[in-house]
Amino acid sequence: MGLTDTANRPTKRGRPGYDQEAVLRIAVEAFNEYGYDATSMGKLADRLGISKSAIYHHVPSKEDLLRLALDEALIPLEAVIAEVRTHEGTADERLEFFLRATFRILLDKRSYVTLLLRLRGNTELERQALQRRRAMDRQLAELVAAAQSDGKLRADLEPRATARLLFGLINSVVDWYRADGPINGTELEEQAVSLLFNGLHTVNA
Amino acid sequence: MGLTDTANRPTKRGRPGYDQEAVLRIAVEAFNEYGYDATSMGKLADRLGISKSAIYHHVPSKEDLLRLALDEALIPLEAVIAEVRTHEGTADERLEFFLRATFRILLDKRSYVTLLLRLRGNTELERQALQRRRAMDRQLAELVAAAQSDGKLRADLEPRATARLLFGLINSVVDWYRADGPINGTELEEQAVSLLFNGLHTVNA
Repeated sequence: MGLTDTANRPTKRGRPGYDQEAVLRIAVEAFNEYGYDATSMGKLADRLGISKSAIYHHVPSKEDLLRLALDEALIPLEAVIAEVRTHEGTADERLEFFLRATFRILLDKRSYVTLLLRLRGNTELERQALQRRRAMDRQLAELVAAAQSDGKLRADLEPRATARLLFGLINSVVDWYRADGPINGTELEEQAVSLLFNGLHTVNA
Repeated sequence: MGLTDTANRPTKRGRPGYDQEAVLRIAVEAFNEYGYDATSMGKLADRLGISKSAIYHHVPSKEDLLRLALDEALIPLEAVIAEVRTHEGTADERLEFFLRATFRILLDKRSYVTLLLRLRGNTELERQALQRRRAMDRQLAELVAAAQSDGKLRADLEPRATARLLFGLINSVVDWYRADGPINGTELEEQAVSLLFNGLHTVNA
Protein backbone atom coordinates (compact mmCIF):
# COMPACT_ATOMS: atom_id res chain seq x y z
CA MET A 1 0.00 0.00 0.00
CA GLY A 2 1.31 3.45 -0.85
CA LEU A 3 1.37 6.58 1.22
CA THR A 4 -1.53 8.22 -0.56
CA ASP A 5 -4.82 6.77 -1.57
CA THR A 6 -6.16 9.03 -4.27
CA ALA A 7 -9.61 7.43 -4.12
CA ASN A 8 -10.14 8.52 -0.50
CA ARG A 9 -7.97 11.58 0.01
CA PRO A 10 -8.18 15.07 -1.40
CA THR A 11 -6.05 15.39 -4.53
CA LYS A 12 -2.53 16.60 -3.74
CA ARG A 13 -1.49 19.94 -5.13
CA GLY A 14 1.77 20.40 -7.01
CA ARG A 15 2.88 19.47 -10.50
CA PRO A 16 0.75 16.82 -12.15
CA GLY A 17 2.53 13.46 -12.27
CA TYR A 18 3.84 13.49 -8.71
CA ASP A 19 2.02 12.31 -5.64
CA GLN A 20 3.62 12.16 -2.20
CA GLU A 21 4.71 8.58 -2.78
CA ALA A 22 6.58 9.47 -5.98
CA VAL A 23 8.22 12.49 -4.32
CA LEU A 24 9.30 10.22 -1.46
CA ARG A 25 10.69 7.56 -3.79
CA ILE A 26 12.76 10.09 -5.72
CA ALA A 27 13.89 11.83 -2.52
CA VAL A 28 15.16 8.55 -1.11
CA GLU A 29 17.12 7.85 -4.30
CA ALA A 30 18.75 11.27 -3.93
CA PHE A 31 19.46 10.76 -0.20
CA ASN A 32 21.15 7.44 -1.01
CA GLU A 33 23.12 8.95 -3.86
CA TYR A 34 24.44 12.10 -2.16
CA GLY A 35 23.76 11.50 1.54
CA TYR A 36 20.81 12.94 3.46
CA ASP A 37 22.75 15.92 4.85
CA ALA A 38 24.13 16.84 1.43
CA THR A 39 20.70 16.74 -0.28
CA SER A 40 18.99 20.11 0.05
CA MET A 41 15.33 20.67 -0.79
CA GLY A 42 16.62 22.84 -3.68
CA LYS A 43 18.63 19.93 -5.08
CA LEU A 44 15.61 17.70 -4.68
CA ALA A 45 13.39 20.20 -6.52
CA ASP A 46 15.91 20.23 -9.40
CA ARG A 47 15.83 16.47 -9.54
CA LEU A 48 12.04 16.39 -9.59
CA GLY A 49 11.92 19.24 -12.09
CA ILE A 50 9.53 21.19 -9.87
CA SER A 51 9.89 24.29 -7.71
CA LYS A 52 10.90 24.13 -4.05
CA SER A 53 7.48 25.46 -3.07
CA ALA A 54 5.85 22.63 -5.07
CA ILE A 55 7.72 20.09 -2.88
CA TYR A 56 6.34 21.80 0.22
CA HIS A 57 2.85 21.04 -1.11
CA HIS A 58 3.70 17.36 -0.62
CA VAL A 59 5.68 17.41 2.63
CA PRO A 60 6.33 20.15 5.20
CA SER A 61 10.09 19.56 5.51
CA LYS A 62 13.08 17.45 4.50
CA GLU A 63 12.95 15.79 7.91
CA ASP A 64 9.36 14.70 7.22
CA LEU A 65 10.58 13.04 4.04
CA LEU A 66 13.19 11.21 6.12
CA ARG A 67 10.59 10.17 8.69
CA LEU A 68 8.22 8.82 6.02
CA ALA A 69 11.09 7.03 4.28
CA LEU A 70 12.39 5.39 7.47
CA ASP A 71 8.88 4.22 8.35
CA GLU A 72 8.65 2.54 4.94
CA ALA A 73 11.49 0.28 6.14
CA LEU A 74 10.88 0.16 9.89
CA ILE A 75 7.13 -0.58 9.92
CA PRO A 76 7.38 -3.85 7.93
CA LEU A 77 10.54 -4.85 9.82
CA GLU A 78 8.78 -4.30 13.13
CA ALA A 79 5.79 -6.28 11.86
CA VAL A 80 8.19 -9.22 11.47
CA ILE A 81 9.09 -9.01 15.17
CA ALA A 82 5.39 -9.10 16.04
CA GLU A 83 4.94 -12.17 13.79
CA VAL A 84 7.97 -13.87 15.36
CA ARG A 85 6.43 -13.39 18.81
CA THR A 86 3.21 -15.16 17.84
CA HIS A 87 4.96 -17.84 15.72
CA GLU A 88 4.29 -21.26 17.23
CA GLY A 89 7.50 -23.03 16.16
CA THR A 90 10.66 -23.76 18.13
CA ALA A 91 13.16 -20.94 18.77
CA ASP A 92 15.28 -22.39 15.96
CA GLU A 93 12.35 -22.23 13.52
CA ARG A 94 11.38 -18.74 14.66
CA LEU A 95 14.98 -17.61 14.13
CA GLU A 96 14.91 -18.91 10.57
CA PHE A 97 11.53 -17.25 9.98
CA PHE A 98 12.93 -13.94 11.33
CA LEU A 99 15.96 -14.05 9.02
CA ARG A 100 13.96 -15.02 5.93
CA ALA A 101 11.22 -12.42 6.50
CA THR A 102 13.84 -9.72 7.09
CA PHE A 103 15.70 -10.74 3.95
CA ARG A 104 12.54 -10.37 1.84
CA ILE A 105 11.80 -6.90 3.21
CA LEU A 106 15.38 -5.85 2.46
CA LEU A 107 14.95 -6.70 -1.21
CA ASP A 108 11.37 -5.41 -1.37
CA LYS A 109 12.06 -2.08 0.39
CA ARG A 110 15.66 -1.87 -0.66
CA SER A 111 16.18 1.88 -1.09
CA TYR A 112 14.37 2.64 2.19
CA VAL A 113 16.39 0.02 4.08
CA THR A 114 19.61 1.36 2.53
CA LEU A 115 18.75 4.79 3.93
CA LEU A 116 18.04 3.26 7.35
CA LEU A 117 21.31 1.30 7.40
CA ARG A 118 23.36 4.41 6.58
CA LEU A 119 21.89 6.65 9.29
CA ARG A 120 24.47 8.40 11.42
CA GLY A 121 22.34 9.41 14.40
CA ASN A 122 22.94 13.17 14.02
CA THR A 123 19.36 14.19 14.87
CA GLU A 124 16.67 13.07 17.31
CA LEU A 125 14.72 11.44 14.46
CA GLU A 126 17.79 9.48 13.36
CA ARG A 127 18.54 8.40 16.91
CA GLN A 128 14.95 7.16 17.35
CA ALA A 129 15.24 5.09 14.18
CA LEU A 130 18.56 3.64 15.39
CA GLN A 131 16.87 2.71 18.68
CA ARG A 132 14.17 0.85 16.75
CA ARG A 133 16.95 -1.01 14.89
CA ARG A 134 18.60 -1.93 18.18
CA ALA A 135 15.31 -3.38 19.45
CA MET A 136 15.47 -5.77 16.47
CA ASP A 137 19.07 -6.70 17.34
CA ARG A 138 17.97 -7.52 20.89
CA GLN A 139 15.04 -9.60 19.68
CA LEU A 140 17.32 -11.60 17.38
CA ALA A 141 19.88 -12.09 20.19
CA GLU A 142 17.10 -13.42 22.45
CA LEU A 143 16.05 -15.90 19.79
CA VAL A 144 19.66 -17.06 19.35
CA ALA A 145 19.95 -17.58 23.12
CA ALA A 146 16.60 -19.44 23.24
CA ALA A 147 17.64 -21.76 20.38
CA GLN A 148 20.92 -22.40 22.18
CA SER A 149 18.99 -23.35 25.34
CA ASP A 150 16.94 -25.80 23.25
CA GLY A 151 20.21 -27.43 22.13
CA LYS A 152 19.56 -26.60 18.47
CA LEU A 153 22.27 -23.96 18.11
CA ARG A 154 25.91 -24.19 19.15
CA ALA A 155 26.33 -22.91 22.70
CA ASP A 156 29.81 -21.45 22.10
CA LEU A 157 28.55 -18.44 20.11
CA GLU A 158 27.88 -15.26 22.09
CA PRO A 159 24.22 -14.37 21.35
CA ARG A 160 24.50 -10.57 20.96
CA ALA A 161 27.58 -10.70 18.73
CA THR A 162 25.99 -13.55 16.75
CA ALA A 163 22.81 -11.52 16.19
CA ARG A 164 24.91 -8.63 14.80
CA LEU A 165 26.87 -10.99 12.54
CA LEU A 166 23.67 -12.57 11.22
CA PHE A 167 22.15 -9.18 10.42
CA GLY A 168 25.52 -8.10 8.97
CA LEU A 169 25.41 -10.88 6.39
CA ILE A 170 21.69 -10.49 5.65
CA ASN A 171 21.73 -6.67 5.51
CA SER A 172 24.69 -6.61 3.11
CA VAL A 173 22.42 -7.70 0.26
CA VAL A 174 21.02 -4.18 -0.09
CA ASP A 175 24.51 -3.02 -1.09
CA TRP A 176 25.29 -5.57 -3.77
CA TYR A 177 22.31 -7.68 -4.88
CA ARG A 178 21.53 -7.37 -8.57
CA ALA A 179 18.50 -8.94 -10.20
CA ASP A 180 20.72 -9.73 -13.21
CA GLY A 181 23.44 -11.31 -11.03
CA PRO A 182 24.36 -15.01 -10.84
CA ILE A 183 21.33 -15.99 -8.69
CA ASN A 184 17.87 -14.56 -8.12
CA GLY A 185 16.42 -13.28 -4.84
CA THR A 186 14.74 -16.57 -3.85
CA GLU A 187 17.92 -18.58 -4.48
CA LEU A 188 19.98 -15.99 -2.62
CA GLU A 189 17.65 -16.23 0.39
CA GLU A 190 18.13 -20.02 0.42
CA GLN A 191 21.89 -19.76 0.12
CA ALA A 192 22.24 -17.06 2.81
CA VAL A 193 20.07 -18.98 5.30
CA SER A 194 21.79 -22.28 4.53
CA LEU A 195 25.24 -20.68 4.86
CA LEU A 196 24.32 -19.24 8.27
CA PHE A 197 22.79 -22.44 9.66
CA ASN A 198 25.11 -25.02 8.10
CA GLY A 199 28.32 -23.17 7.31
CA LEU A 200 30.67 -23.29 4.33
CA HIS A 201 32.30 -26.63 5.08
CA THR A 202 31.17 -29.89 3.62
CA VAL A 203 29.92 -32.15 6.41
CA ASN A 204 33.01 -34.35 6.34
CA ALA A 205 35.55 -31.60 5.62
CA MET B 1 53.66 3.74 9.78
CA GLY B 2 52.06 7.16 9.47
CA LEU B 3 51.74 9.41 6.48
CA THR B 4 54.48 11.75 7.57
CA ASP B 5 57.89 10.88 8.86
CA THR B 6 59.11 13.97 10.62
CA ALA B 7 62.68 12.67 10.80
CA ASN B 8 63.04 12.59 7.01
CA ARG B 9 60.61 15.17 5.68
CA PRO B 10 60.59 18.91 5.94
CA THR B 11 58.47 20.07 8.88
CA LYS B 12 54.84 20.68 7.85
CA ARG B 13 53.55 24.21 8.14
CA GLY B 14 50.25 24.98 9.82
CA ARG B 15 49.19 25.27 13.44
CA PRO B 16 51.50 23.46 15.86
CA GLY B 17 49.98 20.22 17.12
CA TYR B 18 48.66 19.02 13.75
CA ASP B 19 50.61 17.07 11.20
CA GLN B 20 49.06 15.71 8.01
CA GLU B 21 48.25 12.41 9.75
CA ALA B 22 46.27 14.14 12.52
CA VAL B 23 44.41 16.32 9.99
CA LEU B 24 43.54 13.18 8.06
CA ARG B 25 42.35 11.32 11.13
CA ILE B 26 40.06 14.16 12.19
CA ALA B 27 38.83 14.69 8.62
CA VAL B 28 37.83 11.03 8.35
CA GLU B 29 35.89 11.26 11.63
CA ALA B 30 34.00 14.24 10.19
CA PHE B 31 33.38 12.49 6.84
CA ASN B 32 31.95 9.49 8.70
CA GLU B 33 29.83 11.68 10.95
CA TYR B 34 28.29 14.02 8.33
CA GLY B 35 29.07 12.29 5.03
CA TYR B 36 31.90 13.26 2.70
CA ASP B 37 29.77 15.46 0.45
CA ALA B 38 28.28 17.34 3.41
CA THR B 39 31.67 18.06 5.01
CA SER B 40 33.12 21.28 3.59
CA MET B 41 36.72 22.37 4.13
CA GLY B 42 35.26 25.22 6.20
CA LYS B 43 33.43 22.79 8.51
CA LEU B 44 36.64 20.79 8.80
CA ALA B 45 38.63 23.90 9.70
CA ASP B 46 36.08 24.67 12.46
CA ARG B 47 36.47 21.17 13.80
CA LEU B 48 40.25 21.41 13.81
CA GLY B 49 40.13 24.92 15.26
CA ILE B 50 42.37 26.23 12.47
CA SER B 51 41.77 28.44 9.44
CA LYS B 52 40.83 27.05 6.04
CA SER B 53 44.13 28.23 4.63
CA ALA B 54 45.97 26.33 7.39
CA ILE B 55 44.33 23.09 6.17
CA TYR B 56 45.60 23.79 2.68
CA HIS B 57 49.13 23.78 4.09
CA HIS B 58 48.59 20.09 4.85
CA VAL B 59 46.63 18.93 1.79
CA PRO B 60 45.80 20.63 -1.51
CA SER B 61 42.09 19.67 -1.55
CA LYS B 62 39.28 17.77 0.14
CA GLU B 63 39.58 15.13 -2.55
CA ASP B 64 43.24 14.60 -1.59
CA LEU B 65 42.11 13.95 1.97
CA LEU B 66 39.69 11.36 0.63
CA ARG B 67 42.38 9.76 -1.53
CA LEU B 68 44.81 9.53 1.42
CA ALA B 69 42.08 8.17 3.70
CA LEU B 70 40.95 5.50 1.24
CA ASP B 71 44.55 4.39 0.72
CA GLU B 72 44.87 3.92 4.49
CA ALA B 73 42.22 1.19 4.12
CA LEU B 74 42.90 -0.08 0.60
CA ILE B 75 46.69 -0.50 0.76
CA PRO B 76 46.67 -2.95 3.71
CA LEU B 77 43.62 -4.75 2.28
CA GLU B 78 45.37 -5.17 -1.06
CA ALA B 79 48.49 -6.39 0.76
CA VAL B 80 46.32 -9.23 2.09
CA ILE B 81 45.45 -10.28 -1.46
CA ALA B 82 49.16 -10.37 -2.30
CA GLU B 83 49.81 -12.51 0.80
CA VAL B 84 46.96 -14.85 -0.09
CA ARG B 85 48.51 -15.37 -3.54
CA THR B 86 51.84 -16.51 -2.08
CA HIS B 87 50.26 -18.48 0.80
CA GLU B 88 51.22 -22.16 0.48
CA GLY B 89 48.13 -23.71 2.11
CA THR B 90 45.08 -25.28 0.49
CA ALA B 91 42.37 -23.02 -0.98
CA ASP B 92 40.34 -23.65 2.17
CA GLU B 93 43.22 -22.48 4.39
CA ARG B 94 43.92 -19.48 2.18
CA LEU B 95 40.25 -18.53 2.36
CA GLU B 96 40.36 -18.61 6.16
CA PHE B 97 43.59 -16.58 6.14
CA PHE B 98 41.97 -14.01 3.82
CA LEU B 99 38.92 -13.60 6.08
CA ARG B 100 40.96 -13.37 9.29
CA ALA B 101 43.49 -10.89 7.88
CA THR B 102 40.67 -8.73 6.48
CA PHE B 103 38.86 -8.83 9.82
CA ARG B 104 41.97 -7.56 11.65
CA ILE B 105 42.44 -4.66 9.22
CA LEU B 106 38.79 -3.70 9.65
CA LEU B 107 39.23 -3.30 13.39
CA ASP B 108 42.69 -1.76 13.08
CA LYS B 109 41.77 0.77 10.35
CA ARG B 110 38.15 1.03 11.31
CA SER B 111 37.34 4.66 10.51
CA TYR B 112 39.12 4.47 7.14
CA VAL B 113 37.34 1.23 6.23
CA THR B 114 34.00 2.74 7.30
CA LEU B 115 34.61 5.59 4.86
CA LEU B 116 35.48 3.09 2.11
CA LEU B 117 32.38 0.97 2.73
CA ARG B 118 30.09 4.02 2.53
CA LEU B 119 31.41 5.35 -0.77
CA ARG B 120 28.73 6.13 -3.32
CA GLY B 121 30.81 6.30 -6.49
CA ASN B 122 29.91 9.91 -7.34
CA THR B 123 33.42 10.88 -8.52
CA GLU B 124 36.20 9.25 -10.51
CA LEU B 125 38.25 8.78 -7.31
CA GLU B 126 35.31 7.05 -5.59
CA ARG B 127 34.70 4.83 -8.60
CA GLN B 128 38.38 3.79 -8.66
CA ALA B 129 38.21 2.85 -4.96
CA LEU B 130 35.04 0.83 -5.60
CA GLN B 131 36.83 -0.97 -8.45
CA ARG B 132 39.64 -1.90 -6.06
CA ARG B 133 37.00 -3.29 -3.66
CA ARG B 134 35.45 -5.32 -6.46
CA ALA B 135 38.87 -6.83 -7.23
CA MET B 136 38.86 -8.15 -3.64
CA ASP B 137 35.36 -9.58 -4.11
CA ARG B 138 36.56 -11.40 -7.23
CA GLN B 139 39.64 -12.75 -5.45
CA LEU B 140 37.49 -14.07 -2.61
CA ALA B 141 35.01 -15.64 -5.08
CA GLU B 142 37.91 -17.41 -6.84
CA LEU B 143 39.11 -18.82 -3.53
CA VAL B 144 35.61 -20.05 -2.70
CA ALA B 145 35.41 -21.78 -6.10
CA ALA B 146 38.89 -23.31 -5.65
CA ALA B 147 38.00 -24.65 -2.18
CA GLN B 148 34.79 -26.10 -3.65
CA SER B 149 36.84 -27.86 -6.37
CA ASP B 150 39.04 -29.33 -3.62
CA GLY B 151 35.90 -30.75 -2.00
CA LYS B 152 36.44 -28.75 1.20
CA LEU B 153 33.51 -26.36 0.71
CA ARG B 154 29.93 -27.22 -0.15
CA ALA B 155 29.45 -27.18 -3.89
CA ASP B 156 25.86 -25.88 -3.76
CA LEU B 157 26.84 -22.29 -2.86
CA GLU B 158 27.30 -19.87 -5.76
CA PRO B 159 30.88 -18.51 -5.39
CA ARG B 160 30.28 -14.82 -6.22
CA ALA B 161 27.19 -14.47 -4.03
CA THR B 162 28.98 -16.40 -1.28
CA ALA B 163 31.99 -14.05 -1.44
CA ARG B 164 29.65 -11.06 -1.03
CA LEU B 165 27.85 -12.69 1.91
CA LEU B 166 31.17 -13.53 3.62
CA PHE B 167 32.39 -9.95 3.26
CA GLY B 168 28.93 -8.73 4.34
CA LEU B 169 29.22 -10.51 7.67
CA ILE B 170 32.90 -9.62 8.20
CA ASN B 171 32.54 -5.97 7.10
CA SER B 172 29.57 -5.39 9.40
CA VAL B 173 31.87 -5.30 12.43
CA VAL B 174 32.99 -1.76 11.59
CA ASP B 175 29.39 -0.63 12.21
CA TRP B 176 28.80 -2.23 15.59
CA TYR B 177 31.92 -3.64 17.27
CA ARG B 178 32.62 -2.10 20.67
CA ALA B 179 35.75 -2.83 22.68
CA ASP B 180 33.55 -2.78 25.81
CA GLY B 181 30.98 -5.17 24.30
CA PRO B 182 30.37 -8.81 25.31
CA ILE B 183 33.49 -10.19 23.54
CA ASN B 184 36.84 -8.74 22.51
CA GLY B 185 38.25 -8.46 18.96
CA THR B 186 40.17 -11.75 19.06
CA GLU B 187 37.16 -13.70 20.34
CA LEU B 188 34.92 -12.02 17.78
CA GLU B 189 37.31 -13.03 14.96
CA GLU B 190 37.13 -16.66 16.18
CA GLN B 191 33.34 -16.60 16.41
CA ALA B 192 32.84 -14.94 13.02
CA VAL B 193 35.16 -17.39 11.23
CA SER B 194 33.69 -20.39 13.04
CA LEU B 195 30.14 -19.26 12.26
CA LEU B 196 30.98 -18.92 8.57
CA PHE B 197 32.78 -22.26 8.24
CA ASN B 198 30.66 -24.39 10.58
CA GLY B 199 27.28 -22.63 10.78
CA LEU B 200 24.92 -22.00 13.67
CA HIS B 201 23.54 -25.51 14.04
CA THR B 202 24.91 -28.03 16.46
CA VAL B 203 26.35 -30.99 14.54
CA ASN B 204 23.42 -33.27 15.35
CA ALA B 205 20.67 -30.60 15.18
